[in-house]
Amino acid sequence: MAKKQKTFRPKARVPRGFRDRLGAEIVAEREMLARISAVYESHGFDPLETPAFEFTDALGKFLPDVDRPNQGVFSIQDDDQQWMSLRYDLTAPLARYVAENYDGLPKPFRRYQVGPVWRNEKPGPGRFRQFTQCDADTVGAPAPYADAEMCAMFCDVIEAAGIQKGDYFVRISNRKIVDGLFEKIGLDGDESAEMRMTVMRSMDKFDRLGDQGVSLLLGKGRKDDSGDFTDGANLDPANIEAVLSFLNSGQADDPLGAIAQILGDTKSGEAGLDELTGIKNAIPDFDSRSIIFDCSVIRGLEYYTGPVFEAELTSTIEDAKGRPVQIGSVGGGGRYDGLVKRFKGVEVPAVGFSVGVSRLLAALELQQGAKANPAGPVIVLALEKDQMASYQTMAAELRIAGIRSEVYLGGSNFAKQLKYADKRTAPVAIIQGEDERQKNEITIKDLVLGSELSKKIEDNTEWREEQPAQFSVPRANLVEAVKSTLARRR
Amino acid sequence: MAKKQKTFRPKARVPRGFRDRLGAEIVAEREMLARISAVYESHGFDPLETPAFEFTDALGKFLPDVDRPNQGVFSIQDDDQQWMSLRYDLTAPLARYVAENYDGLPKPFRRYQVGPVWRNEKPGPGRFRQFTQCDADTVGAPAPYADAEMCAMFCDVIEAAGIQKGDYFVRISNRKIVDGLFEKIGLDGDESAEMRMTVMRSMDKFDRLGDQGVSLLLGKGRKDDSGDFTDGANLDPANIEAVLSFLNSGQADDPLGAIAQILGDTKSGEAGLDELTGIKNAIPDFDSRSIIFDCSVIRGLEYYTGPVFEAELTSTIEDAKGRPVQIGSVGGGGRYDGLVKRFKGVEVPAVGFSVGVSRLLAALELQQGAKANPAGPVIVLALEKDQMASYQTMAAELRIAGIRSEVYLGGSNFAKQLKYADKRTAPVAIIQGEDERQKNEITIKDLVLGSELSKKIEDNTEWREEQPAQFSVPRANLVEAVKSTLARRR
Repeated sequence: MAKKQKTFRPKARVPRGFRDRLGAEIVAEREMLARISAVYESHGFDPLETPAFEFTDALGKFLPDVDRPNQGVFSIQDDDQQWMSLRYDLTAPLARYVAENYDGLPKPFRRYQVGPVWRNEKPGPGRFRQFTQCDADTVGAPAPYADAEMCAMFCDVIEAAGIQKGDYFVRISNRKIVDGLFEKIGLDGDESAEMRMTVMRSMDKFDRLGDQGVSLLLGKGRKDDSGDFTDGANLDPANIEAVLSFLNSGQADDPLGAIAQILGDTKSGEAGLDELTGIKNAIPDFDSRSIIFDCSVIRGLEYYTGPVFEAELTSTIEDAKGRPVQIGSVGGGGRYDGLVKRFKGVEVPAVGFSVGVSRLLAALELQQGAKANPAGPVIVLALEKDQMASYQTMAAELRIAGIRSEVYLGGSNFAKQLKYADKRTAPVAIIQGEDERQKNEITIKDLVLGSELSKKIEDNTEWREEQPAQFSVPRANLVEAVKSTLARRR
Repeated sequence: MAKKQKTFRPKARVPRGFRDRLGAEIVAEREMLARISAVYESHGFDPLETPAFEFTDALGKFLPDVDRPNQGVFSIQDDDQQWMSLRYDLTAPLARYVAENYDGLPKPFRRYQVGPVWRNEKPGPGRFRQFTQCDADTVGAPAPYADAEMCAMFCDVIEAAGIQKGDYFVRISNRKIVDGLFEKIGLDGDESAEMRMTVMRSMDKFDRLGDQGVSLLLGKGRKDDSGDFTDGANLDPANIEAVLSFLNSGQADDPLGAIAQILGDTKSGEAGLDELTGIKNAIPDFDSRSIIFDCSVIRGLEYYTGPVFEAELTSTIEDAKGRPVQIGSVGGGGRYDGLVKRFKGVEVPAVGFSVGVSRLLAALELQQGAKANPAGPVIVLALEKDQMASYQTMAAELRIAGIRSEVYLGGSNFAKQLKYADKRTAPVAIIQGEDERQKNEITIKDLVLGSELSKKIEDNTEWREEQPAQFSVPRANLVEAVKSTLARRR
């Protein structure tokens, strides 16, 4: 016999930045995604599923000759030496799909996609390396009508997820009017590219820092609460003033008019305003209250070429301890007319948005308050092992009546079986020992009532003798008796 | 300005062995998985979601010090130099999850999981490197009750998927009775390990080759139809006879009795028979006709330690051209008491099964015949671009009434819009041009009727003048008129 070697035992743990999810959390997400998918389908969008892998060069972030393109995405070299990467969003695979199947697709092409994406980034609290995205895009329809439709559909999606009208806004801006602002303040030349980035980063902080903070960032710089100093953009006061009126134009009674006053004489500003006006006119009345024009929307992604939009929850929600929580953005999107061009050389107009699934779920969970643990299944205790088929028949009868139920499958210890029922938050336990069986009866134990009563009754003897939360019925009345017991809780 | 470089255009294509799916196929799978998940939940199973990546050592196929563990799985080295792999099934992640969270879990622990798995294998026709698995497992319950429950739940799952009782069987065997067979024919020693594999491979071909073919493989060898010769196991005739009666015992009126006659005097055979008898006794009557004991079930996976089962469609389905198609196995599973032990050192009993999602979908598609293309959305034509908000209002009214609908968002060419409606298999188009708008009317075009009539009417002039498949109604009657038009088709 071979010499005994020390057994290798791998440590059971999930890789960092990834997580497991069990039960209620999955069900909540699944139900929300089903409601959102139904909205997409009702708007004529078809589901698309692309594989987890794309060729790295198709993702567009990397050149194909980089040795190990593992920055930001998970990449792997296939047997034929080509690099593949796990998708980091659902937009790049769509661009590849459209380019690959262009001639056969109806145009405009409407699709939605739901699925995981992967980011090879440093994980942090609440920041995972795998998460769910849920996108809708229209390819082949130029601005502004498809943009207007996207914003209106975004409203339907947020409401289908469970947020009330009035508790959110879809805010729209346009890359072109930001370009108009740069034209206005003399930062439109090639030599000002870096400066434009600094100014945009400052503008992006407007919702957090307001006029005063952004004014400092645009001027001489700003010291934050921790004492750290951020260098400013050193714009002159007139230009700082122009940026601030630009950011505040969303507050005006007529935002588009206010923007026109600031930027109407710039070429890019005019083009952007035309698109925004086109969007405004194409939005039906019933959505117009939820969709607002607001130049302070800056979306981070570089590939946007025109309208950009962001959905934001406006109401402050209180957490379980009564503290106010600001959820903020629950998704966004915009127009990207250049993405398919990478493959085909011709520009294909496209617009879409991505729903912030986990943010929306967090908002709903807060709104509904600390949820009661969802009820577990009815547990049929297994007291006599040779009666297992009979217990399984009881559970099956309950299931046929629509009641979630299972037979206990561990050891035969009675207390352990009840403890298991407790851990599963079972509402009811079904008991048939030898006594009950000979009388052709079952005992129904109301575990919810039992748990309430056990808090009140202090005398253990009284409890044992009276067993107020359980009762016996003929075996034939199983379903009826469980139903009426469950009905007490509803 | 920089010198103009040749633009790099990546080729738009999906990596080999992967595929895109659009529309109906996704919807069909989603609906089937929802029905199966509902069965699992009704049996007290909770959904679990583990991430795509596991540490390679946790997958159990590889040692952690192998340089590039990319054989069979997709692996990647994380920033901290640890190897991670995309899961190749849902069982290994479950074992890791249970080991990681053992103390906090209710025991037995019931979970189901649905999701993609990845295999780094050579793709072939109908064989993909990413596909969906759908598993249910019970951890912490020893044989035979949990095994019996699994088989019964497997029946419920197959019926929920849409297969009728009588059109399938769940066949059960047990690794231990196979061991008993090897004891019987003198192949139970360490020195016969290789021979046992040869014999098992031959046995696994029983459903395809029958008595005669397997008999050749167990004896002197067999030449197949293509002329290739497979070496035989060179068993002596008495032992070949024993193996064949073993394989045929499933056909006996009392299979367990038949097995007992062959193997009752072997230690392993007795243990396996005890488990099978325990399973038989724990299965309720209403499932017993669908669950049969059949020693010819050999499951490929090495980790099974006791009962193994396989679900099989028995009826032959005809394809669109009337040719008979045998679907065969639609999933299987078994008991694997050693898998969690890899992490914890102690044996944790576990049993589960995996549904062959794509096989079941293929069977259902064949059964239902060549499906009619599912109806697309109602298309509201967009003839006057400044009326876009009004068209969107029409589409919204239809959606509120539960009718899938969209506004055409491409160019204004009328024929192109109708061509798009045709490509989308739209049942109805809504038309409001300037004329209709001034009369506050809309025209409903019944595209299904139109397509039928256009096959019959040959006179183009007659067609143009009568327009038999369209009619005008007041704008206020939009929803009602579309509903009654759609109702003609149902």
